[in-house]
Amino acid sequence: MRVEIWSDIACPWCYVGKARFEKALGAFPHRDSVEVVHRSFELDPHRAKDDIQPVAAMLAKKYGMSEAQAQAGEENLGRQAAAEGLAYRTGGRDHGSTFDMHRLLHFAKEQGCQDVLLGLLYKANFAEERSVFGDDERLVELGTAAGLDPDGVRRVLADPAAYAEDVRADEREAEQLGARGVPFFVLDRKYGVSGAQPAEVFTQALTRAWDERSPLALLPDGDAEACGPDGCAVPQG
Amino acid sequence: MRVEIWSDIACPWCYVGKARFEKALGAFPHRDSVEVVHRSFELDPHRAKDDIQPVAAMLAKKYGMSEAQAQAGEENLGRQAAAEGLAYRTGGRDHGSTFDMHRLLHFAKEQGCQDVLLGLLYKANFAEERSVFGDDERLVELGTAAGLDPDGVRRVLADPAAYAEDVRADEREAEQLGARGVPFFVLDRKYGVSGAQPAEVFTQALTRAWDERSPLALLPDGDAEACGPDGCAVPQG
Repeated sequence: MRVEIWSDIACPWCYVGKARFEKALGAFPHRDSVEVVHRSFELDPHRAKDDIQPVAAMLAKKYGMSEAQAQAGEENLGRQAAAEGLAYRTGGRDHGSTFDMHRLLHFAKEQGCQDVLLGLLYKANFAEERSVFGDDERLVELGTAAGLDPDGVRRVLADPAAYAEDVRADEREAEQLGARGVPFFVLDRKYGVSGAQPAEVFTQALTRAWDERSPLALLPDGDAEACGPDGCAVPQG
Repeated sequence: MRVEIWSDIACPWCYVGKARFEKALGAFPHRDSVEVVHRSFELDPHRAKDDIQPVAAMLAKKYGMSEAQAQAGEENLGRQAAAEGLAYRTGGRDHGSTFDMHRLLHFAKEQGCQDVLLGLLYKANFAEERSVFGDDERLVELGTAAGLDPDGVRRVLADPAAYAEDVRADEREAEQLGARGVPFFVLDRKYGVSGAQPAEVFTQALTRAWDERSPLALLPDGDAEACGPDGCAVPQG
């Protein structure tokens, strides 16, 4: 079974939702048969790389609330994160383009360490003092900690086209699937779970998708000429 | 709609089947909404890189037939290829590991030129005199012709770990889906078409899968806290 998770590193509910999903997955009896794939979704895909702002001011401006109200919202988010065992820094965070991080996550996918890198990026963004924005060497450190080759990370960061198409393809697919926000979980392309739902909801969705797994139906019911490990059909005649 | 095609560059039926599928797709009214993804399947995944043999001798040995019989089979294959407008060299081809080509196809996927590269690899292997095996510079030329950066291709070839996990993941998935040979076509993970079926079969499969497309069912029927282009749910209270 395959679960695809669309998310953005700048999305606090993705950080919290990932932990809730993982709680459900960790207790799911068939967890070893579940493949998890992370998909890219930028909340702000047109954001310039050098446009970095403090989170509190951005929230206040976006929602027309006072900075004190924005701060109260962050503190509530911090409590929800803490309930999942996650560190969350409720003051002094900043906010910027996540495009390069998504490109790196695709690089990490191909190296088998995508989930580890995503966890490190979330932690760095939401729980650590040093910014993840506007500082390529910070991303090199995080990529290296995830198991990537530092020069490989630098090469990806230096070439804005690297993995860009993967990011855009994920985003187009999210749109086609009807995702309007993140986190967005898709189970075997059949069921969708939108938002940082409680772990029980993920358990129910996993169970339902698992019970309804169905083998591929072959059309037509039979093979044509093909090659297999034992060789190819050799036409005679 | 998504069609995934498992195939191997060394598989003549994959070469022929790709053309038959493309004939059907080209006439399919919803072709612009069909995403085609190529997946890796090595017929001989344990083959050493330096183990390169003439095709006729390999066929004769594998099937316990005379070289003349093997040659007759190749000539028949050449006729089936010609019927699809494909060039096919019925004598003098060789045969070896396709692992590096599959790794390059994953590199090309991320650069948006996977289908072009696969077409060039097939053509090079089945229709051109110069071998695609045991000659990295040949692969650099083909990759460059597909639109890849030559140094990028050289880097992938020089690092056997690059994209290796993508190749292995595709192969594990083929096994899980029940593919025992290639080409193997999977439509929206619901229908499978095995082998180089006639174009009409692909038309029927595309039509059926298209007619049965269904939107994701949301579980539960509602969102939880999420972030979207207009911002995040901000908990108050």
